[in-house]
Amino acid sequence: MNLHGENIIGNELSKEGPEVFQAAGADTGAPLEPSFHEAVESEVDRALRAAAAAFEAYRTRTAGERADFLRLLAGNIDAMGGDLTERASAETGLPAARLNGERARTVNQIRMFAGLLDEGSWVDARIDRAEPERQPLPKPCLRRMLIPVGPVAVFGASNFPLAFSVCGGDTVTALAAGNPVVVKAHPAYPGTCEMLAGALLHAIEQAGMPAGLFSMVHGQGHDVGLWLVRHPLTCAVGFTGSLQAGRALMDAAAARPAPIPVFAEMGSVNPIFILPGAMSERGASIAAGLVGSVTLGAGQFCTNPGLVFGVEGDAFEGFIAEAGRLMAATGAATMLHAGICSAFAADAEKLEASQGIAVIAKAAEGGKTQGRGVFFRTDARTFAANPALQEEVFGPASIIVSCPGLAAMEQIARGLRGNLTATLHATAEDLDESGALVDILRNCAGRLVFDGYPTGVEVVPSMHHGGPYPASSDVRATSVGTAAIQRFVRPICYQNAPQDVLPVELRDANARGVWRLVDNERTREDC
Amino acid sequence: MNLHGENIIGNELSKEGPEVFQAAGADTGAPLEPSFHEAVESEVDRALRAAAAAFEAYRTRTAGERADFLRLLAGNIDAMGGDLTERASAETGLPAARLNGERARTVNQIRMFAGLLDEGSWVDARIDRAEPERQPLPKPCLRRMLIPVGPVAVFGASNFPLAFSVCGGDTVTALAAGNPVVVKAHPAYPGTCEMLAGALLHAIEQAGMPAGLFSMVHGQGHDVGLWLVRHPLTCAVGFTGSLQAGRALMDAAAARPAPIPVFAEMGSVNPIFILPGAMSERGASIAAGLVGSVTLGAGQFCTNPGLVFGVEGDAFEGFIAEAGRLMAATGAATMLHAGICSAFAADAEKLEASQGIAVIAKAAEGGKTQGRGVFFRTDARTFAANPALQEEVFGPASIIVSCPGLAAMEQIARGLRGNLTATLHATAEDLDESGALVDILRNCAGRLVFDGYPTGVEVVPSMHHGGPYPASSDVRATSVGTAAIQRFVRPICYQNAPQDVLPVELRDANARGVWRLVDNERTREDC
Repeated sequence: MNLHGENIIGNELSKEGPEVFQAAGADTGAPLEPSFHEAVESEVDRALRAAAAAFEAYRTRTAGERADFLRLLAGNIDAMGGDLTERASAETGLPAARLNGERARTVNQIRMFAGLLDEGSWVDARIDRAEPERQPLPKPCLRRMLIPVGPVAVFGASNFPLAFSVCGGDTVTALAAGNPVVVKAHPAYPGTCEMLAGALLHAIEQAGMPAGLFSMVHGQGHDVGLWLVRHPLTCAVGFTGSLQAGRALMDAAAARPAPIPVFAEMGSVNPIFILPGAMSERGASIAAGLVGSVTLGAGQFCTNPGLVFGVEGDAFEGFIAEAGRLMAATGAATMLHAGICSAFAADAEKLEASQGIAVIAKAAEGGKTQGRGVFFRTDARTFAANPALQEEVFGPASIIVSCPGLAAMEQIARGLRGNLTATLHATAEDLDESGALVDILRNCAGRLVFDGYPTGVEVVPSMHHGGPYPASSDVRATSVGTAAIQRFVRPICYQNAPQDVLPVELRDANARGVWRLVDNERTREDC
Repeated sequence: MNLHGENIIGNELSKEGPEVFQAAGADTGAPLEPSFHEAVESEVDRALRAAAAAFEAYRTRTAGERADFLRLLAGNIDAMGGDLTERASAETGLPAARLNGERARTVNQIRMFAGLLDEGSWVDARIDRAEPERQPLPKPCLRRMLIPVGPVAVFGASNFPLAFSVCGGDTVTALAAGNPVVVKAHPAYPGTCEMLAGALLHAIEQAGMPAGLFSMVHGQGHDVGLWLVRHPLTCAVGFTGSLQAGRALMDAAAARPAPIPVFAEMGSVNPIFILPGAMSERGASIAAGLVGSVTLGAGQFCTNPGLVFGVEGDAFEGFIAEAGRLMAATGAATMLHAGICSAFAADAEKLEASQGIAVIAKAAEGGKTQGRGVFFRTDARTFAANPALQEEVFGPASIIVSCPGLAAMEQIARGLRGNLTATLHATAEDLDESGALVDILRNCAGRLVFDGYPTGVEVVPSMHHGGPYPASSDVRATSVGTAAIQRFVRPICYQNAPQDVLPVELRDANARGVWRLVDNERTREDC
């Protein structure tokens, strides 16, 4: 494994600037070779110019050509040896088994988008035929479909070095839609990023795609990201990370002379509501599921359940005791990097010191780079009085909140901020008694989980991974599932265009057999 | 016709504040009775609270109930007497024939959305069924569809007192989607707004919908609009108007603690490119079409063609001469209000005084409140050196730009800002020689018109009325056609939900027979 540590501008390497940095081993904190070169503004500018030039060529490629290109990319990542897992594990502390699973997911989602392109109906083609004889005015022929927006800037997530990274969901949806991509490599795992970039550059070469279709720049601070978002040629932004960083990008994008959309997935506290019937019936098994969900991946998932609500009473106390017992029997786990680990420890200490909040149990003590799972408890009144308890603690911690009754639970649900998910454990009788809760929770979340746990995000067309602010920047957007492609496209309408000017999906002959809306009827026929 | 001039907060009238204003007759400038009461902040707050309360009830109404409600609204507007046309004509100067046509359009688009609700497939229902036996982990059942976002603030357009106003496209798409609406009445035609509000309030009553579903507030300045956009209960904004006002709302929405989307349609210059073959073949008829399009509705359309490009030569000079001859034979027309009329006159004077810009011809001189159509000419070099020429002049004016050749035309097209439309007059041979132009124009516009004129926006599913900034705030959104409903909805995903908790569109039995994506196959069957 030979890493060069340079910025990648299309098919050229670049190290214009004087600053370098190294990744740190997640386990040891020791610096990892090599040094990576921070990009300077002129490198970001060159990357966007190369992307804009590539866009003119790339957007004319057929859907089939784009699908083949994506499959080459998937194959390249599949074919990468243990080097990738080894480097990713060193940089992030994630174990090999998890990373191999994440690699499979990454490759699967690339192939899912290739399949979406092959099938083709996602372009939402619509045709309204002309009526030249209509009175008082002839009706023109109108044809509409979705087309790519232009160069997309992508910021990967700290917690998914493969699936939400250089070749992750944002990049792949942007490429599938027909857009070039400029990736800001994650400074915590720049080596992994470089290896993935190699797979993508190789696929570009194999498929004969234009060189500027992909660039990648390095940066530890905020500058590189802001240059990317502010560059006039950038048309959209995909981001997964903290609320603070995501909001900074949103603000920068909104302040541009020509604002652009930022699709930022910024995490949430993913409340779980356990209704009395379910608590009585299976409190112990819910406790076991909860501990598994909270500590999965050292709690470093945006769908990690940070808040749990139950109705006070014996069943609730039994649940607390069982959850505590299981948490105490859990080991500590290495976190993604020292910054995340110390931030988690500080957040947990702050909670522990808060008035009205008690520790139920902690996982076993671990090393300096390890996060120690913890359950806190408080009551509805303390929770309602302290909005800071709705802020995400990134790591294996949950606050379990006792409510005096269902009405208090509903009251709390109404006051929740936006979340990626909300979970309900309920029997049929519970739902009869508190059906309003479903509607209330629907209002504050993107995904409603019943009798399960929010972690585990299935990559399928029906998945929605987004939610009201601050869970994401745009409540209409998902970063997982096939609908994610809708972030990086826009409609175009052709009026009275000659057949040979039209994209193939809009011609009379439906050569690709896509589903279209023709004179308001859904059909795959020619027209 | 008895107008009360008060703000409408749900089913109550309100005049808390001290300020009043009157509309002015577009023709005479004389004040029209009655006085209208400017809303104060507490009235805006009450309107949003009423809307949020109504949302909880309204979003549970079935699609059929919403469709029936919309049809009642359409019927009420249909049933309004000549009073509506008379008042609208007095306030806007638009002739009765135009207003009657606009009323028909308004009613038709309401019925179009009722039909969309009846058909139901627009909710984009998706189901991925569970695989409990899947290894290593069971696959959950996921179901996703679009649901309403919450209270929407709507700002009507000065130039469409019926179709883009109180009961216009934005209001109706928001209501169809399941959202309450708070309208900011347009201060130039508050009486028309009040009459339309009456039709909507009556429909709410007839259909037994919750009272806070609709409110309307008055305001002449910026305050009322900003209160609406900044209110924490407002979830989205629909706006049609100037770039300056639209951008102010965008900035306010982006600066909120929880930002919300503003769907602002802010107009554009709608360039027309006439290629040499088309110019030779039918320059005179294009000139006639152009004059009709530029002067239609006194040039007060957001699709008004403000820029025309041709290749210099005899055919081009013939075109200019004919366009000038026809413009000179055109009468002046009353504009929407004194402010628009004087702004147009000032813009035209500024152009006339500009270096390198000459007047080709003007329409006949009219009265003080009338706009006088005008064609200017300049050359490609002057145009390229003067970005201000890409700014919209709201009124019957076009700048005709001579280009030394096709390459210069393409160069200019590459430098265009975002537009709602771009138009190409071309023969088949023209397109063979300059096919790149289609692709270039596609990049800067929302609708590409071939051998026609941009004015005339057909209300059909395939219409796209939007475009890259500054034509609109969000390149993905349209304010005309059925896709307009997508602005005011968001996805929700249910994981392992019991059947009776699910919306009807997501249950196994497809009772409504909507098109769904089930395990990635499009079907109307049960599952």
